[in-house]
Amino acid sequence: MSTTAGSKVFEYIEKLAAISEDDGKLTRVSLSEQHRQANQLVAGLMRDAGMLVHTDAIGNIVGRLEGQSDSRALLLGSHLDTVRDAGRFDGMLGVVAPIVCIEQLQKNGVKLPFAVEIVGFCDEEGVRFPSTLLGSRAIAGTLDPAVLNECDANNISLADALQAFGQDPAKVSSASRSADEFLGFVEVHIEQGPVLEREGLPVGLVSAISGAGRYSITVDGVAGHAGTVPMHLRSDALVAASECIVEIERICQALPDVVGTVGVIDARPGAGNVIPGQVEFSLDLRSSRDSTRDQAQQQIYNAIDSVAAKRKVAINCQQTYEANSVTCDQWLSGQIGQAISACGHRLHSLPSGAGHDAMALAELTNVAMLFVRCAGGISHNPEESITEEDAEVAVQVLYQLLTQFEYDAAS
Amino acid sequence: MSTTAGSKVFEYIEKLAAISEDDGKLTRVSLSEQHRQANQLVAGLMRDAGMLVHTDAIGNIVGRLEGQSDSRALLLGSHLDTVRDAGRFDGMLGVVAPIVCIEQLQKNGVKLPFAVEIVGFCDEEGVRFPSTLLGSRAIAGTLDPAVLNECDANNISLADALQAFGQDPAKVSSASRSADEFLGFVEVHIEQGPVLEREGLPVGLVSAISGAGRYSITVDGVAGHAGTVPMHLRSDALVAASECIVEIERICQALPDVVGTVGVIDARPGAGNVIPGQVEFSLDLRSSRDSTRDQAQQQIYNAIDSVAAKRKVAINCQQTYEANSVTCDQWLSGQIGQAISACGHRLHSLPSGAGHDAMALAELTNVAMLFVRCAGGISHNPEESITEEDAEVAVQVLYQLLTQFEYDAAS
Repeated sequence: MSTTAGSKVFEYIEKLAAISEDDGKLTRVSLSEQHRQANQLVAGLMRDAGMLVHTDAIGNIVGRLEGQSDSRALLLGSHLDTVRDAGRFDGMLGVVAPIVCIEQLQKNGVKLPFAVEIVGFCDEEGVRFPSTLLGSRAIAGTLDPAVLNECDANNISLADALQAFGQDPAKVSSASRSADEFLGFVEVHIEQGPVLEREGLPVGLVSAISGAGRYSITVDGVAGHAGTVPMHLRSDALVAASECIVEIERICQALPDVVGTVGVIDARPGAGNVIPGQVEFSLDLRSSRDSTRDQAQQQIYNAIDSVAAKRKVAINCQQTYEANSVTCDQWLSGQIGQAISACGHRLHSLPSGAGHDAMALAELTNVAMLFVRCAGGISHNPEESITEEDAEVAVQVLYQLLTQFEYDAAS
Repeated sequence: MSTTAGSKVFEYIEKLAAISEDDGKLTRVSLSEQHRQANQLVAGLMRDAGMLVHTDAIGNIVGRLEGQSDSRALLLGSHLDTVRDAGRFDGMLGVVAPIVCIEQLQKNGVKLPFAVEIVGFCDEEGVRFPSTLLGSRAIAGTLDPAVLNECDANNISLADALQAFGQDPAKVSSASRSADEFLGFVEVHIEQGPVLEREGLPVGLVSAISGAGRYSITVDGVAGHAGTVPMHLRSDALVAASECIVEIERICQALPDVVGTVGVIDARPGAGNVIPGQVEFSLDLRSSRDSTRDQAQQQIYNAIDSVAAKRKVAINCQQTYEANSVTCDQWLSGQIGQAISACGHRLHSLPSGAGHDAMALAELTNVAMLFVRCAGGISHNPEESITEEDAEVAVQVLYQLLTQFEYDAAS
């Protein structure tokens, strides 16, 4: 195949990055004028690659290349919306790399027995409306019609935004597809973490999209004067919280494939000369295996109970959110793994700690993901970057996957 | 002596507590109309007890009872100003208990060889003006004339407030006294801590007023996505800070007579799904022995350096304030100790973690302090309370001190 795939990816990425509501930085929210322009650009690229293109009822842009012998499609894609002041690769890489791959197939005269569809999802980030994953959930048929009434910051409902975008909100359910239309879904995405960079690898295979639990933890001790209460008479809520935070790290380090993060802490009353009487802190706990996350949660609860008993403080843990993990499909991932190896790269599997469109698609079909190395693990930031060489590898792996796809096994 | 001393103390405390700028709560700042009323009330009580009374150039109310053979005075007293929404005993007990003691002396016809002076200091809390200890520093001759230009929240300078109070600000230095006028200074004060309550004792002898250091400590780690950065690739500033906080407690517990408090903590960026990249926290370190505080500081610096090296984070410690301890005079404290024992109470010495007028008076003469048990160690709060029985003990100890004073040893 041509060695220009990487530069093609970068050319299209630059064109997409130029479509922004902000001057000098990239912000593109779903169903906006900028979204329409991005869909038009992508539709043009798809058509140039020989695909039939339509916009579906939720505003996704969908391109289709028919197969020789089977109408079932391998679905590829990612999202075209961005966070505010975004990077250029999050989402967009997963739309552009498959298009460049299809271009290469066409150029080389390769005919696939099965169909290929590429989707540019209308909303994954959830920046404009309170809900996220609108595009992928609509295709999976899991979009609650109630979200049509949700409003953006300008009090425009999703229904009105769809109307203005040229879609009939009453027909939004027609975006949903059936399982027997697909062989599976493969999403290419930047890693948004530092693992592949540390491993020295351009791409990696995602084992699962991590499940997550979020918690609010409150420690009640006894406030007091920093000068007059001797150490042995204190019930310092902040030292107790600190011991919990150190324990949380120890527990998450000892278990495989778990991350635990305390990102927010508030000590009250919050004066330098007053012993904290109450501390509230957050916990974000993730694992690609729900049973391991349950195990981590139990160990953390036990550790917190020990700290509370030892220090004579009360500690209350409130779970505020839970989402189970989505395991990537073994058969589909196995084929991506073979493609990575065939392209000459060591196969490294890693979980995705962040959420992706593949989470929603997993309700409809088998899903798998290919991660691409990003500099410093930096994402959701204008500094977000990948190399042309790594983009080239991503296209090569997709090309290898499509041309060597074990199609019989899928039936 | 009469058993009504405790109830007398409470009667006078109630009268003083009724003089407030706020309805239903006690707030009385220096050189205010309420301060004038409090001085008038105290002056009346002093005169009724046979003392000669004057208001000095900074607004202190001073009563004097001449001795039989020596003009040198044992100085007693505390402050008449309060914090906002204050308790009734902080400061006032140290003015009222000596007055009740003098009443008892007069009633019993006891004549002392030396003089006694009682001062109601005009300002210890520093609520109205930026500076604190105005009254005791003026008497000690350590008041910087520059503070006359400091302004309150209504932009009234201390000089103008003095003028309105009937004093000539140009003559404020005339409030200063000379060392040879005094035998020493004894301050009665509520403990504002829980130690005497735990010891089951009505009163305690203060060994020293603690010195203090305040610090701002900044931990610089690396922020990152809570889902995508594995535990072993993190430089989490909050876990590092937590380890420091646990170490600070361990070090302060292991050293005698040291308290260390982290009262303020701020984790940045402060989102539940972001690993904290920077944490700033406060440290308040106190000890009655400066060498022990130095030792604690060094051990804390070493522990922080170890945490920084182990976790590959940068930790910067900035000392923002330092005040050395004031050791109570052995000879004077010894006599208070004898008086406590003579009154039938076990002698317990403890440091004062909070500052007091005695700190400023130590620049002029020997100082000593008698602490009175307060419920739950609660102070600077309307819940602040002591019992009539403990107030009685405080007056008894003062009476014992004055009547058994080893006067020869003082010359």
